[in-house]
Amino acid sequence: MASEEANPKTVDDAEQLVQSEDPQHPSNLICELCRKFYALGWVTGTGGGTSIRYHDHIFLAPSGVQKELMKPSDIFVMDFNTKEYLRKPSVLKPSACTPLFLAAFTRGAGCCIHTHSQWAVLVTLLVERDFGQSACFEIEEIEQIKGIGKGRGKVGNLGYHDRLRIPIIENTAFEEDLTESLEVAMEKYPDTYAILVRRHGIYVWGDNVHKAKTQCESLDYIFQLAVEMKKLGLPWAKSSDTHLSDI
Amino acid sequence: MASEEANPKTVDDAEQLVQSEDPQHPSNLICELCRKFYALGWVTGTGGGTSIRYHDHIFLAPSGVQKELMKPSDIFVMDFNTKEYLRKPSVLKPSACTPLFLAAFTRGAGCCIHTHSQWAVLVTLLVERDFGQSACFEIEEIEQIKGIGKGRGKVGNLGYHDRLRIPIIENTAFEEDLTESLEVAMEKYPDTYAILVRRHGIYVWGDNVHKAKTQCESLDYIFQLAVEMKKLGLPWAKSSDTHLSDI
Amino acid sequence: MASEEANPKTVDDAEQLVQSEDPQHPSNLICELCRKFYALGWVTGTGGGTSIRYHDHIFLAPSGVQKELMKPSDIFVMDFNTKEYLRKPSVLKPSACTPLFLAAFTRGAGCCIHTHSQWAVLVTLLVERDFGQSACFEIEEIEQIKGIGKGRGKVGNLGYHDRLRIPIIENTAFEEDLTESLEVAMEKYPDTYAILVRRHGIYVWGDNVHKAKTQCESLDYIFQLAVEMKKLGLPWAKSSDTHLSDI
Amino acid sequence: MASEEANPKTVDDAEQLVQSEDPQHPSNLICELCRKFYALGWVTGTGGGTSIRYHDHIFLAPSGVQKELMKPSDIFVMDFNTKEYLRKPSVLKPSACTPLFLAAFTRGAGCCIHTHSQWAVLVTLLVERDFGQSACFEIEEIEQIKGIGKGRGKVGNLGYHDRLRIPIIENTAFEEDLTESLEVAMEKYPDTYAILVRRHGIYVWGDNVHKAKTQCESLDYIFQLAVEMKKLGLPWAKSSDTHLSDI
Repeated sequence: MASEEANPKTVDDAEQLVQSEDPQHPSNLICELCRKFYALGWVTGTGGGTSIRYHDHIFLAPSGVQKELMKPSDIFVMDFNTKEYLRKPSVLKPSACTPLFLAAFTRGAGCCIHTHSQWAVLVTLLVERDFGQSACFEIEEIEQIKGIGKGRGKVGNLGYHDRLRIPIIENTAFEEDLTESLEVAMEKYPDTYAILVRRHGIYVWGDNVHKAKTQCESLDYIFQLAVEMKKLGLPWAKSSDTHLSDI
Repeated sequence: MASEEANPKTVDDAEQLVQSEDPQHPSNLICELCRKFYALGWVTGTGGGTSIRYHDHIFLAPSGVQKELMKPSDIFVMDFNTKEYLRKPSVLKPSACTPLFLAAFTRGAGCCIHTHSQWAVLVTLLVERDFGQSACFEIEEIEQIKGIGKGRGKVGNLGYHDRLRIPIIENTAFEEDLTESLEVAMEKYPDTYAILVRRHGIYVWGDNVHKAKTQCESLDYIFQLAVEMKKLGLPWAKSSDTHLSDI
Repeated sequence: MASEEANPKTVDDAEQLVQSEDPQHPSNLICELCRKFYALGWVTGTGGGTSIRYHDHIFLAPSGVQKELMKPSDIFVMDFNTKEYLRKPSVLKPSACTPLFLAAFTRGAGCCIHTHSQWAVLVTLLVERDFGQSACFEIEEIEQIKGIGKGRGKVGNLGYHDRLRIPIIENTAFEEDLTESLEVAMEKYPDTYAILVRRHGIYVWGDNVHKAKTQCESLDYIFQLAVEMKKLGLPWAKSSDTHLSDI
Repeated sequence: MASEEANPKTVDDAEQLVQSEDPQHPSNLICELCRKFYALGWVTGTGGGTSIRYHDHIFLAPSGVQKELMKPSDIFVMDFNTKEYLRKPSVLKPSACTPLFLAAFTRGAGCCIHTHSQWAVLVTLLVERDFGQSACFEIEEIEQIKGIGKGRGKVGNLGYHDRLRIPIIENTAFEEDLTESLEVAMEKYPDTYAILVRRHGIYVWGDNVHKAKTQCESLDYIFQLAVEMKKLGLPWAKSSDTHLSDI
């Protein structure tokens, strides 16, 4: 994929940014991921989005498309340094998630996923009711926690005895207006790879596509388990000194 | 697809109304949508239906077929102006939903979907029990509400702070007898793109296939979330002045 | 498929009973149905079974096979009149459901399906606890009831205002020992197209494959809805004179 | 597959251990099983694992890979007698489950499956709360119990009236540290084909791939049913002298 690295000078060059027979090419990967995420119920009704950073190019799923039907020709490409679009499908709108994805890429992410997972939404409501508006989602002693990295620049993943903490920010009328509080949360919780948005969903990222997808799946598993635990009256944490963190 | 616009004069012409290699042809789209809707549990046991208006032709899935097995040759075609069938598969029966779909097409819809979604059915039962028989389903501050349009002739979609209101009509013994109360609800709530039918399911429409499908998915997501919220004791709306509307 | 009607005289003839390129051939249909039923969670862990009567030949899925992997060469064929096997795969065992399927075929069925659906099992437990061991499962005013036929020899399906009644028999240690109580229930409820087995699952049949599958799907939809209604505290029937029937 | 039986002397020989056009070859089977298990939610986020013993060769899925994307070239092969790797993909890590799988193979298993099924995790939490930390999961009179074998060296499966008992061990920080308590449980319950791990998942094995998969599916079905029974207030066992066993 070496040739994608130079910025395009012509329309043909711009097309080559997203057309490749390599299934690992970012524009092919985004389409494959979106099909999977649709099947998981994460991007229902054109919701959610996915973006990959490949060197200085940011590949972005567009706004308002049926995610299971996406084609490489639907993908936007942005120059990471100049924040200018190198490729803009004329009939589509850029994703309102773009500034939020950029916030993660600026902090070293290689891939960022936004879902409307119902388990994520329910968890934000349960935390608010049971632990207050400033509380994080917190859970401990669940094996799947080991699917989440320790934090940027740290080696390895969380352990079984580590408490998983995912900050929650309040939703806003316009998606791009989440950027400021997302960045505040990213600074306050520099080790987190995910931020929940109350009544909305989640942003998850990772050093690369593999890690972002794996962390997104692991978190969704944990949220689903946490909701089922609530239904069954099972506590999320053993110790009582929980949910004191505020944001 | 220009040639479909003339009404057929021979059996061969009638066949050409539904046979096309273009995956975007209405008869191909209906079959693809029905396969997806089967996988989502919306058209179990031959339930539900889908119809597309393309210029003056109405394409209709037939009654009583296994929706995941539908073929273009199963599709009925009706002239929108004369309401006469231009194509009628001899071994199949027209859908009892036809007058209900026509009510939406008359009001500008380009595609209409009827599902038996269990989440829709449960929501109609919960609204009746908790807010009375004349109440609409109402929910607010859920991001997915932004997947629903503001209303016919209005630009853009509902906002996060808008309250979503979906009217509910009572079921009848025969599907076609729903037409009158459906039309009353359409007149009373001219901005709605969907009407719930108690103990039965939902009718959802949109300006085109993309919008009808997206709105149907978004509403189903919201109904499922609403049912899970009830199980967890979470309220559908923050303010208390809710569910005062009657139909 | 006319040639299948003669009984086979040689091994080659026996093979021809189950090998056909016609997707509507009973042995192909059984394999396709079993793949679908596996995806629906009805035949998990080699559970459940399916059988089709085609003229005087009974096609039967074998015992103990992974239902999603079944091939036409796995199918048993029995002569309906003599009850002798016309084809018996040497490495497989006939289904223990065979006498139960025959009870339905004797009463005019063209296809019989046995599932271990969890919704069916849960419904048998809820009926026992809430209405007693002799009660049928009963529900009313759910649109999907219209997916169930009025009864053998009767024209058309149940109406929305008809009460659906599915008898429940007690499970036995050996599947074949269910035959007697299944037949007693069939005689007591001659209009039923299904019989639940407590803590086990359900037998559903129909005049042909289409009707058996449609009725099985419709019933499973209704059982799932009924379980969800119980979780939400919603009653299965409006009137109080319910569940007085005994078996 | 006879040629796999000799240990490889060259890199080419090692490659041949995992490359075959036979869909029943262990490395093809592991990939197919992992795709199915991903769809079932058992191996989300690279969790879980699968291993097959074929004569003196142990085929193992690697650690940390997306299970639905696994290829035969990702498979590790170990010599059962020497416990040395005959094939080690250079870029992958061996599964931390390896000593646990070996514990099952040493006791006669032909295939071993490890899942993070949420139903298994929830069942371990419910047993701890309702019956104490030393209790097994116990259930009786559910037809699907007949999908589980009587025990190593015993002919046939459990009966409907047999009580199913699955021991539960406590989770540890590192997966390999489960080995000792897993082996203690295997010795204490020599007839079990599965051991639950609290807050983690389950290990299931069988004489061959068919039996391991069937037992894993049957147990998962039973755990899901048991969780739903708890939500509905339905007891797991009729008699009161339950859950007295300790481990």
